[in-house]
Amino acid sequence: MAHRIYANELEMLHECVETCNYCLESCLEEKDVQMMVDCIRLDRECAAACAFLAEAMTRDSAFVPELARACAVICKACAQECGKHKHAHCQECARVCTECASMCDRLAA
Amino acid sequence: MAHRIYANELEMLHECVETCNYCLESCLEEKDVQMMVDCIRLDRECAAACAFLAEAMTRDSAFVPELARACAVICKACAQECGKHKHAHCQECARVCTECASMCDRLAA
Amino acid sequence: MAHRIYANELEMLHECVETCNYCLESCLEEKDVQMMVDCIRLDRECAAACAFLAEAMTRDSAFVPELARACAVICKACAQECGKHKHAHCQECARVCTECASMCDRLAA
Amino acid sequence: MAHRIYANELEMLHECVETCNYCLESCLEEKDVQMMVDCIRLDRECAAACAFLAEAMTRDSAFVPELARACAVICKACAQECGKHKHAHCQECARVCTECASMCDRLAA
Repeated sequence: MAHRIYANELEMLHECVETCNYCLESCLEEKDVQMMVDCIRLDRECAAACAFLAEAMTRDSAFVPELARACAVICKACAQECGKHKHAHCQECARVCTECASMCDRLAA
Repeated sequence: MAHRIYANELEMLHECVETCNYCLESCLEEKDVQMMVDCIRLDRECAAACAFLAEAMTRDSAFVPELARACAVICKACAQECGKHKHAHCQECARVCTECASMCDRLAA
Repeated sequence: MAHRIYANELEMLHECVETCNYCLESCLEEKDVQMMVDCIRLDRECAAACAFLAEAMTRDSAFVPELARACAVICKACAQECGKHKHAHCQECARVCTECASMCDRLAA
Repeated sequence: MAHRIYANELEMLHECVETCNYCLESCLEEKDVQMMVDCIRLDRECAAACAFLAEAMTRDSAFVPELARACAVICKACAQECGKHKHAHCQECARVCTECASMCDRLAA
């Protein structure tokens, strides 16, 4: 068995899931929640995609590159939307998603 | 809200999840389970990918094409492996995965 | 293999996932989105729990009763919150979640 | 927002997902794979349940106790089955699942 070691990648993905879900929850608490609707949607997508990719890695999936390709697109979209908002949770989420997207790009290559 | 109607696609994906998981369980019951190891792995991957794509559709994800592209690759790999085995559950799984892969190709286009 | 047939239960769970996610998306489009925050959270929980239980059923899990017990609690909470709102998507979601909760109660028994 | 901090619990759950999936993959590589069928099934259940509970925690779900209750039952069943086998991956998996079950019991209380 060629069990790949993905320790750093898993840590990055878990961090991205947590950051996106924290951002989503924080957006729901914002007074201007109406402004945060796209952010909420993208946080949800990104958390789901990163969690799915992490699970695939732990089962030593042969399709990590294909899944990482899709995940990179989603992370970038989430980073772009979060980057539009000044809230600390959005800025932090934009930063983590950008980093995670870069990692996914490498995995997809 | 541009809520896409994916009724037929969801039905196909649910059928593929069920067929792959039934094939996986049946492979575990086969006397020649050693021969079925790759089939078990791919059934698992394919069931997970189709379930994930179905969930994305129900949340009206903007990333259905990207996820469908990855799912198509996985469905084809599962269909190819299942097609090598004479067991009825493998033959049926190969048929359903091939059909599901075609649908995913259309969604990805 | 004692492969349980869960056709009706799977249909109910898939309907509940779709209805919750449709309600969630509709809540995000409401002008009074601030009022819908708890509904959004519970729709998300309920969609996730029902999708997870459905996947467990398709893999013929031995733990359907335990998972259905948790799912019933979540469906009831979602039905209760949705029932507070007059929006058609909330009323429909309350109805479907109540029905799904009853089914989960039967599976948990 | 009462965002619970679950850092240790998430680490435990991620470790359990990885250990179960590693055990599952290792079981598929064993010569006596026929003997490992129940272990394969339970590893899969346990990895899925722990991953689901971890996702629920990251979205600050109100239903962590209910989900942890189900997860504890699954972790214990997996630990019991893995404990029957002498393979290092099974013994390690039994150990991690037992620890994870204790944590889930505490969360469920």
